[in-house]
Order: sequence, then structure tokens, then C-alpha cells
Amino acid sequence: MMAEITAESLRPNAERLAADLKALAEYTDSVAPGWTRQVFSDPYRASRQWTRHHMDEAGLETHIDAAGNIVGVLPGRNPSLPVLMTGSHTDTVHGGGRFDGMVGVLGSIELARTLREAGLQFERDLVVVDFLGEEANPYGISCIGSRSIAGVLKPEHLDRTDHEGNKLGDVMTAFGLNPNQAISQAWKPGSIHSYVELHIEQGPLLERRGTSIGVVTAIAGIDRLMAQFHGRPDHAGTTPMDGRQDALLAAASAILTIEREACGAPIHGVSTTGRIESSPGAFNIVPDDAKIWAELRSIDPAWLGEVKMRIAQEIAEEADKRGVHTMVEWLSDQAPVQATKLVQDQIAQAADAIGLSWEAVPSGAGHDAAHIASIAPMGMIFVPSQGGRSHVPEEFTDISDISQGVHVLGAALARLDSTENPR
Amino acid sequence: MMAEITAESLRPNAERLAADLKALAEYTDSVAPGWTRQVFSDPYRASRQWTRHHMDEAGLETHIDAAGNIVGVLPGRNPSLPVLMTGSHTDTVHGGGRFDGMVGVLGSIELARTLREAGLQFERDLVVVDFLGEEANPYGISCIGSRSIAGVLKPEHLDRTDHEGNKLGDVMTAFGLNPNQAISQAWKPGSIHSYVELHIEQGPLLERRGTSIGVVTAIAGIDRLMAQFHGRPDHAGTTPMDGRQDALLAAASAILTIEREACGAPIHGVSTTGRIESSPGAFNIVPDDAKIWAELRSIDPAWLGEVKMRIAQEIAEEADKRGVHTMVEWLSDQAPVQATKLVQDQIAQAADAIGLSWEAVPSGAGHDAAHIASIAPMGMIFVPSQGGRSHVPEEFTDISDISQGVHVLGAALARLDSTENPR
Repeated sequence: MMAEITAESLRPNAERLAADLKALAEYTDSVAPGWTRQVFSDPYRASRQWTRHHMDEAGLETHIDAAGNIVGVLPGRNPSLPVLMTGSHTDTVHGGGRFDGMVGVLGSIELARTLREAGLQFERDLVVVDFLGEEANPYGISCIGSRSIAGVLKPEHLDRTDHEGNKLGDVMTAFGLNPNQAISQAWKPGSIHSYVELHIEQGPLLERRGTSIGVVTAIAGIDRLMAQFHGRPDHAGTTPMDGRQDALLAAASAILTIEREACGAPIHGVSTTGRIESSPGAFNIVPDDAKIWAELRSIDPAWLGEVKMRIAQEIAEEADKRGVHTMVEWLSDQAPVQATKLVQDQIAQAADAIGLSWEAVPSGAGHDAAHIASIAPMGMIFVPSQGGRSHVPEEFTDISDISQGVHVLGAALARLDSTENPR
Repeated sequence: MMAEITAESLRPNAERLAADLKALAEYTDSVAPGWTRQVFSDPYRASRQWTRHHMDEAGLETHIDAAGNIVGVLPGRNPSLPVLMTGSHTDTVHGGGRFDGMVGVLGSIELARTLREAGLQFERDLVVVDFLGEEANPYGISCIGSRSIAGVLKPEHLDRTDHEGNKLGDVMTAFGLNPNQAISQAWKPGSIHSYVELHIEQGPLLERRGTSIGVVTAIAGIDRLMAQFHGRPDHAGTTPMDGRQDALLAAASAILTIEREACGAPIHGVSTTGRIESSPGAFNIVPDDAKIWAELRSIDPAWLGEVKMRIAQEIAEEADKRGVHTMVEWLSDQAPVQATKLVQDQIAQAADAIGLSWEAVPSGAGHDAAHIASIAPMGMIFVPSQGGRSHVPEEFTDISDISQGVHVLGAALARLDSTENPR
């Protein structure tokens, strides 16, 4: 006879989880700073063997889908029911940390292990997913794996190229994946009962207020752009200031415009120019070519729409005054996504039942959850980030905080397991 | 008995000179745009063999000095007298043209050839120099060869490194030169009677006014700087705008400050930010590191001094407001240089004698002449640049204009040959 699932019976083994996080962190790019394990890189490839093996050992039935998602299933008592899904990602940004993404994947596996060891079983299958390539990449398409499962990875995405002209589709094939199948493997509507993702907050709110658990209300939308500037390469000593068509000056002006627009935004509106290139790059030639890559984020879709239009217009007007031609290309957009109210409630009640403080918080960062939300009820659990730092080597969350998050994840899924329809 | 030197007897062979310019232009970097032949590159190395051979064929006694200058001597009747020197350079900027520098070197060789063929000889030795590496390079030291001859190439210059950490001294050694001797081979004071350099204008003045010959009054001074910005690499989605230390924003602001200062300058004051780098270069990480390379030019030393101070101060103040730390390093400076009045006069009288229009013009570009001026009376002859364009593949000067310049060069040197002391 199966034991009863209580909040206490789902308490994870913090030491074991800490060891797992340490083991996964060994797979890093030796020549890059911090804990770098970017999608399609050698350390990423190597780490995924470890992750799958780790899922196998936890008793999950694993396979890798066409988009490279590592999928592990812990069977429930009634496999015909829509499944509970959880997970996150194991890729990092360049110079990133050891917690962003990994906490959700390894925490979910620890949950499965805890269930098995306690002789417990959910009614529904528990599906743990390590989604391929969640972080931004040179193709301008983050969340490759969760997009595929949600059915929003499109043929045109596969044609996107990196700085060297390589197509995403070709790079996926070289990585042993099946891009053509990846764009047609969407999970059926209704097949996922609910999706809950555990993640570090990556911002300062929980730590500032001393709260253990963040119940995410919404995930910010992201608009990414690339702006190109074309001027004229004149001699820097002999060409008068008023006779120049300086592409770098137009780009510098655009960077400050992009900043200014977000500084006037409501809470959680931010903008960042993350990359710039300019050529020819000599002291004595007026730069004739510049490119910038930037993004806007907000949980307010109306603000995002207005600012997109204003930025494109202002950049072009300013460049035009300098005789510089502009092209603004919107590379990707992701609308703000609300977390499902009933899933939020179950997470909050799970925290209450365990005796942990919680508060409702927005997510400034994007997540795989934003895509899965298009095909399933979705919720997210945040645990505090030290100093609010993330995407840096110093990124840190204490193992006791992580362990509490895993505990709430298990308790929330247990509550959802017996919920009819969380929509 | 030696024939008498008249202005008419020094008329060069324009067709032959055009063929020489075409032959030298064959030596270009096959993977770079335009007519690229940068210092220390393979095409530069190859072209120099051609140039020396070309000098030999013209009857010059050639050698290569420790700094890599190709020196050709056409002996005069009285080798004990201080010499007449002329020349220019054969390196180009990345994506440069076929005339900047080459016109002075090949024009001087054509002059020597014309003299010999006409059975003419100067009283003084005529020294033709192809100065090594006149253009800006990654070491921040332009005019390597003429600095060496002028005695202003210093040991600390040899320790300057390129973007990959290679030292200038080591690169010179690898190119077959002798850097330690290059810093101690300065020509003795009084050994050069006068120096005259023929060059394209690289600006629009002569063409606009329909003038054949520019008599240079002064060469603009150049101050070059590298500014570094250090901020903090935060998550671009979760870090509020007012909590950021964005190095790229500080750099963009600095670029516009550098522009603004020069826009308020008197005539011939210009500034250019030619290069920018920023890292880590991802969409979703606030850039924590940026560098810019910029230069200021003016024929007014007081303005240059003021603007240097103001720029360093304003950049630091603006960055400080963003929590970004700044370091401004002045890489090189070159004070404005006046052309010697008597040499200017001889050039103008030579143009008059040949019947060519001339006018006094400033030089916005730097030249080897600026360094040789520290050890010898100096003058420069400009010929028109089509559209004022230079340092671009489209750079162009008609062969008839070049030929007129060579003619004036010869006639001016002939006048100086019989001048006691042009200081």
C-alpha cells in the first residue's frame, strides 16, 4: 500500500542536491570566464550526458527529443491523465553562474528521487525536462527547447545565422538533433495538466525583504533588435566635422536613446544595448559602419509596443541628421506572460503549509515557462539571489534556500496532482 | 659639361609615373577591402622589395636602415654638403587608397630618373626615403620610420602592444629590423639642408577652388587617447535601470562628448572616435567593460591642450554618475608643426615659374614631414584629392595633377639646392 504524500514527506536532501549542483558545475568552458556552458558548446554537450545519466539514476525514464530536450518521466499511478511537468535548463550565458536554470533541473530530479525513496507516487506522470538552449544565443532565438515543445519554433528560426553565417538549423543538426522534426513536435493541447518551474530570482527583491519564496505573477516580455548604421569612411584628419557621415556617432546616440526610453518606463521596464560593432576600427578613418544589438523588457505589453515604435523612429531621425542611413530589425519578440492564477495559489498554499514566507513577484527575466504557458497552466517558484546578481560568476543562492524551493515545488505539484483543471 | 637645371628640364614623364603607381598598387591584401597594405603585413613586405628594386633601377644608391626606411641616394656634385631630402610612405590604412604616400615616394623616384636622363645633377646629394609605417597602427605609434630618423622613436614605444599583446619592438624584429638601433640612429643636426614632401591633399580645398598646387603652412597636431570603462555585468532583465553600472552607456556618452568638443573648435579642429569594443556582448548581460580609441587634431596647440583636459574630465564625470570607473590614457601626441617659411616660398616660386596656380593650405592629416621638421627645414606640396576623399578605396588624384606636383617638387628642390640656409 502506497504511503500518503504530505508536505513533510517531500522534504529534499539538501546535501545531496548541493553535491549535484557542484558536479554539474564542473562542466564549464576552460577558456571562458566564470561558469560558462553555452548552448551547442563542447562543455554543454558533455554535461548533457551527465544530466541524462543523473536522471536515469534517479529512476526517470529518459529520452532526448528532436529539439534536444532531455525528458525524464517518473510514472504516476494513472498514466492516461494529463501530466505534471517541471524543469528548467542547464545552458548558461558567457561568463554566467552555477544556479540560473540548474536549480530547476537538479531540484526536479531531487524531487523525483525523494518521491521514490519515500515510496510515494503521484497520480499523474511527473515529467522533468532539461530544455535545450534557454539563454540568448547568436541566432537571436532563446528557449529553443521549450519553443519546440510549445509549437512556436518555426522554420524561419532555423534559417537565422550567427556572426559567422552558420544557420541555427545546421548547427542543431551538427549537434545531433533533428531541426525539421523539432518544428513539428508540439505537445498536444491538454496533454500537460500544469507546469511549475523552480528558478533563482536573479533580482534583488526577495533578499531585500527577507522572503523565502517568490510566487511569480508574470514574466516580462522581451523585444530584441539589431540596428545597422551606414555612413561614409572619410579621413579623420581632413574631413570637417560638419562634412562627416559617422556611423559610430549615430550608434552612440541610439544607445543613449534606448536607455532614455526605458528610464521613463513603469516598474519592470528595462532596456539594454548588450553589443556593439563598428568598422573599420582605425584611429584615422571616420567609422562608416556600426551595428548594435539591444533589448527591451516589460510585463506591460502596451508600453513595449509604444517604445518599440518610438525607438525605431528616434534612432532613424537622429542618424538622418548625421547623414547616416539606418536599418532597425526586430529579431524576436516575446509578449509578457501571466502565470495561471490557480497555479500561483497552489504554490502559495504549499509554502504556507511548509511554513515558509512568500510574496508575489514579477519576473524580469524570460524563462522556458513563458513558452510552456501557451500550452499549459503555468506557475513559477523563485528563490532569493544573493545581491540580486545573475548572469555573472558571482551568482549565488544558498543551498538551504534552494532546498526550500524544491520542497515547495514538490508540495505544489502534489496539490496540483489532485486538482481537476487549474485553468 | 653638366647641363643647366631649368624648370622645364625637370618635367616628369607622366605616363611612366602612372605605370609605376599601378605596379605598386598590385601589392595589396587580397582579403581586405580597397588597396590595403598595412605596415608589417605580407603585401607590405613584398611591395618593399619592388620599391627598393625600383629605386635601384632609377640609379639611386639604396640601403634599408635599422627602422626599415628604404633610403636611396642620388649623389650630388658636392657630397660634403648637407643633403636635400624628399620622400613619403608606401603603407596604407585598412581599406585605403592608391595615392596617399605612394605619390611622394614614386614621384621622388621619377624626379631622380628625370634628372639622370637629362644629364642633370644637383650640387647636393638627393636622398629619397620610403619611411616605414606612416599610418596609424595598433601600437598607437604612426610614422615609425620618420620618428627614428628624427630621433623621437623611444624605447617605451617599442614596448607598446597590439590587441593581441605583441610588442612593437618584437614585431619590428620579426620583420627583419633592428629596433634597438632604430631608437639611436637619428640624423645629425645640420646634416639635412631641407626636406620637401609631395602628398595628396586628402581634403576638399584645392579641388573646390580649382587650384593645382597647395603650399602647406602647418601640419595639424594629433592627440590620441584610449578610454576604458569598468562597470558591473548584471542581468539585463532583472536589474532596474537605476541600479546599473553600464560601461557601454558610459562609452556612448563619451563618444558624443568627444564629438561635441571638436564641433566647437576653430577651423581644422576635428575629433574622431575610430574604434570601440565592449564585453561580454550578450543581449541579456549589462556590459561591464568598454574601450574607445579616439583622436583630436588641430593646427592650434592651445586648443588641443584645453580640449584634452576638458574631455578627460567630462568623460570621468559622466561615467561616475553611472557608477562606472574610467581610465583615460593618452597614447601619443604630436604638436602642430609649422612649415619653414623659406621652404614654403621656394615651393610657391617654383609653381609660379612653371605657371601653375597655388595657394597656402593647412594639413589636417599628419605626415612624416612633421617629424623630419624637428631636424631640418621642412615644406610640403599638396596636389588635389577628388571629392576630398582619402583613406578609402575611392581615393583618387589625376595623373596630370600628380605629375604637376612632381614637377614643382623638382623645381623647388633645385631652388633649395642653391640656397644657403633656409631656416
